[in-house]
Amino acid sequence: MKPIAYLAGPDVFLPDALAVGRAKIAICARHGIEGRLPLDLANPLPARPTPADGHAIYRANAALMRACHLILANLTPFRSPSADVGTVFELGFFAAMGRPCFAYSSATRGFAERTRAMLGLAPDATRDAQGHEIEAFNLPDNLMLPGAVAATHGQWIARDEPPGLDPLAAMAAFEACVVAAARISFPVTA
Amino acid sequence: MKPIAYLAGPDVFLPDALAVGRAKIAICARHGIEGRLPLDLANPLPARPTPADGHAIYRANAALMRACHLILANLTPFRSPSADVGTVFELGFFAAMGRPCFAYSSATRGFAERTRAMLGLAPDATRDAQGHEIEAFNLPDNLMLPGAVAATHGQWIARDEPPGLDPLAAMAAFEACVVAAARISFPVTA
Repeated sequence: MKPIAYLAGPDVFLPDALAVGRAKIAICARHGIEGRLPLDLANPLPARPTPADGHAIYRANAALMRACHLILANLTPFRSPSADVGTVFELGFFAAMGRPCFAYSSATRGFAERTRAMLGLAPDATRDAQGHEIEAFNLPDNLMLPGAVAATHGQWIARDEPPGLDPLAAMAAFEACVVAAARISFPVTA
Repeated sequence: MKPIAYLAGPDVFLPDALAVGRAKIAICARHGIEGRLPLDLANPLPARPTPADGHAIYRANAALMRACHLILANLTPFRSPSADVGTVFELGFFAAMGRPCFAYSSATRGFAERTRAMLGLAPDATRDAQGHEIEAFNLPDNLMLPGAVAATHGQWIARDEPPGLDPLAAMAAFEACVVAAARISFPVTA
């Protein structure tokens, strides 16, 4: 049986979300992994989705996560210095299940540097204008994210995305991450 | 035995993080809940913390999460339209364990409205300047967050923070959330 990977990421917000998802599934297949998308992108939402529609997607995604062996999480920053919160939620879900957490990103700078740049702070600032601390552990995002990757024996792979592609898809880092994930044996107990 | 609550939030980044944490523990105690902070704030970090220090905090937090009955998660937006990713990771961790997820926030506007305001978009915008979708389910954040609260029979409580307090602490919403959490019986199976 092939390992089944949950393909998490802000990719669902891309204009060509379905094409990106299918391309990632094809890359997984070439490396012996079955990729699954968190929601059926071929099944369009109503024009004005309701909270109940959102809760139904949550339940479907949670059931799919429990059925997958590992997560391939796109942790490219999204509208902030940090990763997309939907993806981060899913990373926490897999970490609690003790299943391998693989992360990839097109952001190659560190978290503290990205945070200071986004907030317009000096390169040595330790707090922002509100007095809130700048987390600086020389890690790629909030410590809980790379912590989960390390604790579950996954890998965090950052690669610059080639020009012409939306960096949010992080296709280059994705393929490197799939190659890394394909090297491990299943089942894995973290 | 009192229920033990994991007190998650970007509170750790406040200038008076330890005082805020102690105040929240005291509020919990008044309502019959034992509040636990995700890291020992009384135990200061080295001046230049390393990735290994970050991973040690991760392991301590993960062990503490497994020992707690529920999470009280401060999902007040942090440097973005969404909640702090460290807190969101912990919410996903509790959701996977099937333990009650209670959320509180000082943000009383909806997620889509906050996102458009932060990005300077029109009130009816469906995509941002990069073409990325604005999630709009009439929910308080990315659907996975309120989805987890609903699926684990928790509650999401938003209250305006009184003037003079840092809205990031969300003290008013916190006390309302503790009152709600104190009404449930333990053990709970979600």
